Amino acid sequence: MKKLIGNAIVGQSGGPTSAINATLAGVIRGALSSECIRTIYGMRNGIEGFLAEDILSLNGIFESEDKLKMLEHTPAAALGSCRKKLPTLGAEDSVYERIVDIFKKYDIRYFFYIGGNDSMDTVAKLSEYMGRVDYKVRIVGVPKTIDNDLFGTDHTPGYGTAAKYIATTVEEIVRDCSVYKIPAVTVVEIMGRNAGWLTAAADVARFVGGESADLAYFPERDFDMERFLRDVEDELGKKPNVVVAVSEGARFADGRYVGEGHQSGAVDVFGHKYLAGAGRVLEDEIKRRFGCKVRSIELSLPQRCAAHIASATDLCESVAIGRASVKAACEEGVSGEMMVFERMSDEPYTCAVGHKSVAEIANANRMMPEDFINEDGNGVTEACARYILPLIEGEAYPEYKSGVPVYLRF
Amino acid sequence: MKKLIGNAIVGQSGGPTSAINATLAGVIRGALSSECIRTIYGMRNGIEGFLAEDILSLNGIFESEDKLKMLEHTPAAALGSCRKKLPTLGAEDSVYERIVDIFKKYDIRYFFYIGGNDSMDTVAKLSEYMGRVDYKVRIVGVPKTIDNDLFGTDHTPGYGTAAKYIATTVEEIVRDCSVYKIPAVTVVEIMGRNAGWLTAAADVARFVGGESADLAYFPERDFDMERFLRDVEDELGKKPNVVVAVSEGARFADGRYVGEGHQSGAVDVFGHKYLAGAGRVLEDEIKRRFGCKVRSIELSLPQRCAAHIASATDLCESVAIGRASVKAACEEGVSGEMMVFERMSDEPYTCAVGHKSVAEIANANRMMPEDFINEDGNGVTEACARYILPLIEGEAYPEYKSGVPVYLRF
Repeated sequence: MKKLIGNAIVGQSGGPTSAINATLAGVIRGALSSECIRTIYGMRNGIEGFLAEDILSLNGIFESEDKLKMLEHTPAAALGSCRKKLPTLGAEDSVYERIVDIFKKYDIRYFFYIGGNDSMDTVAKLSEYMGRVDYKVRIVGVPKTIDNDLFGTDHTPGYGTAAKYIATTVEEIVRDCSVYKIPAVTVVEIMGRNAGWLTAAADVARFVGGESADLAYFPERDFDMERFLRDVEDELGKKPNVVVAVSEGARFADGRYVGEGHQSGAVDVFGHKYLAGAGRVLEDEIKRRFGCKVRSIELSLPQRCAAHIASATDLCESVAIGRASVKAACEEGVSGEMMVFERMSDEPYTCAVGHKSVAEIANANRMMPEDFINEDGNGVTEACARYILPLIEGEAYPEYKSGVPVYLRF
Repeated sequence: MKKLIGNAIVGQSGGPTSAINATLAGVIRGALSSECIRTIYGMRNGIEGFLAEDILSLNGIFESEDKLKMLEHTPAAALGSCRKKLPTLGAEDSVYERIVDIFKKYDIRYFFYIGGNDSMDTVAKLSEYMGRVDYKVRIVGVPKTIDNDLFGTDHTPGYGTAAKYIATTVEEIVRDCSVYKIPAVTVVEIMGRNAGWLTAAADVARFVGGESADLAYFPERDFDMERFLRDVEDELGKKPNVVVAVSEGARFADGRYVGEGHQSGAVDVFGHKYLAGAGRVLEDEIKRRFGCKVRSIELSLPQRCAAHIASATDLCESVAIGRASVKAACEEGVSGEMMVFERMSDEPYTCAVGHKSVAEIANANRMMPEDFINEDGNGVTEACARYILPLIEGEAYPEYKSGVPVYLRF
């Protein structure tokens, strides 16, 4: 294969995660040690910044190992992010022409894009367009999403850290809730609009001697309010403190989200509708039915940015997949593909990095397999725990100064 | 002073914290090495369990250093807690007679009670009652509360860890919120019904090179909605992403909580009132005024149980004050007092353990001093940072097994 020599550019896109900068660090490490890449540029705010030529050289910034290490532990996209999708091919090709102009101007021959579903759409379209143009650029997608819902890969970088945060936090909440003897239910609402991967993490600690949610509900199964209330009643019969994990994406059989259906009649003094969320809705229902103490907790943003409790496995793999993307592009000539993880075994956990055509991956969501959820639809199975536990193994702590984490800003 | 030899009992009461078990471990350590104490008992669920004789010997459980170490890192009250207050003296003295009977039955000569305001009320009443009875028991209160609002002590065990969690999490949220370029406001609601100590922690990282909330509001200052919206407008003029920290106890000049006043007209389909909370109310107001993206986050229970990110200073001091309580009771004959911290200096931070009459401490709340809040009432001062930073210094991590923390249950 012919060597393609020139510059490279890397961008980040979509929702932040705690590991997306570890992947960025991996791409930078790969580029700095590649014989084919002279300068590694970064684009600010993904393809949006690229089109505005908001581009900076990363070589000078990351001369030292210290900075790269710090970047690996820093949450959220250090280069900034965007939600922009490229136009359909043929519809507005001036955008693509602009991209090619910038490629030429900066002698860019490698384009690395770290992101989720929508970002892989960008990779797919750009790859297709570049196939028609007489300018060679290798375009590689590197996955990231806490949601773990990308096709084609065993799991996604960022998921392990989010899952570790959730498993740990739910264990601590279970502890907190168990100190009183009066009946009380705590509902923890967890991210995941389309799939229950994150909510599943609330239920795995019990498989390794820890404590987890008593009940867990996922978008993969229709939510039935009566069955749910019966589940809660059963648990309250066993002990005074019940902790429930529910996915924000939990849905009734008719497709309505649990979090939207219920409060359709609720308005504030200005007539605005309240969007309560699944946790709040279940809180209300439990209060009405059982009259006991109920609290709902939304884990909210910390799920995707709590880098202080990163999974060592996740951070290590996130760096590795970034680094591997450079190697694949430079040495194998890979383009139009997304890097993926291929699990070889659960025990001992071993995982390889590969790549797949991005066209099959973009714009679709991967749900949890049938056998990861128990028959009652209110918890995970051992198969699920075997899948998740290796991904949250190990602790990768950031450096601290004067009691607060040292994160990189550049 | 005459040696008082017999057994001891320890209990935990009030809301859980991440360090209340470190204090329990300190009491146990002190008792195990004291010449005056034969058996150290624990009461389950505080004074409520004591009255029900739900009492267990701790000597056997904590023979090994391993278990004590594990206990130090375990969040929430391992012995269980309660909210029970003892009756006013003279009103219902049968309760006190019952206590004395149990003291005699178990030959209890030392009574250690770990708790906050209400728990010190228990210590005060019981001490007073025991002064009238011909049975000698030394009764010592050991403070705990994440709220840091107890009088008589420089700070309270548990505050440092909660403050570290808040400083870290807000720093991570600031990161997460800064990745997009579109204007957006994020409101973080923090615990503290009566005082702003916890909310202040959201604003200290910037004094040591970290990132913190752009604006912070405390119960100590009257909340003015118009001034608040002007503050937000000013910040949005400087940068697209604004992070606001607000205490759940923020109040208008007329005494109404920010979180209750606003949504008085809001009802759900069943006619129930929504209790939105300060964060949700500010979210609505910002949305109405600026029409920009707004999100509110309640830090909720993790503030008081996130032992995975404990302050090493806090855990160490929490053990020390527990241990010192046993020494004070056994060797100095202290009774009817609460253990306190006395800060000697900020830099280097040094702190001593003392004790004060519990009668002056119980049932009152300590607010932040005037000079800890800036003139505009929307942030902390350097004096405040100097006070808080030593308390969040150092990281004390729990052990993990298979990716999840190992916490003790007994």
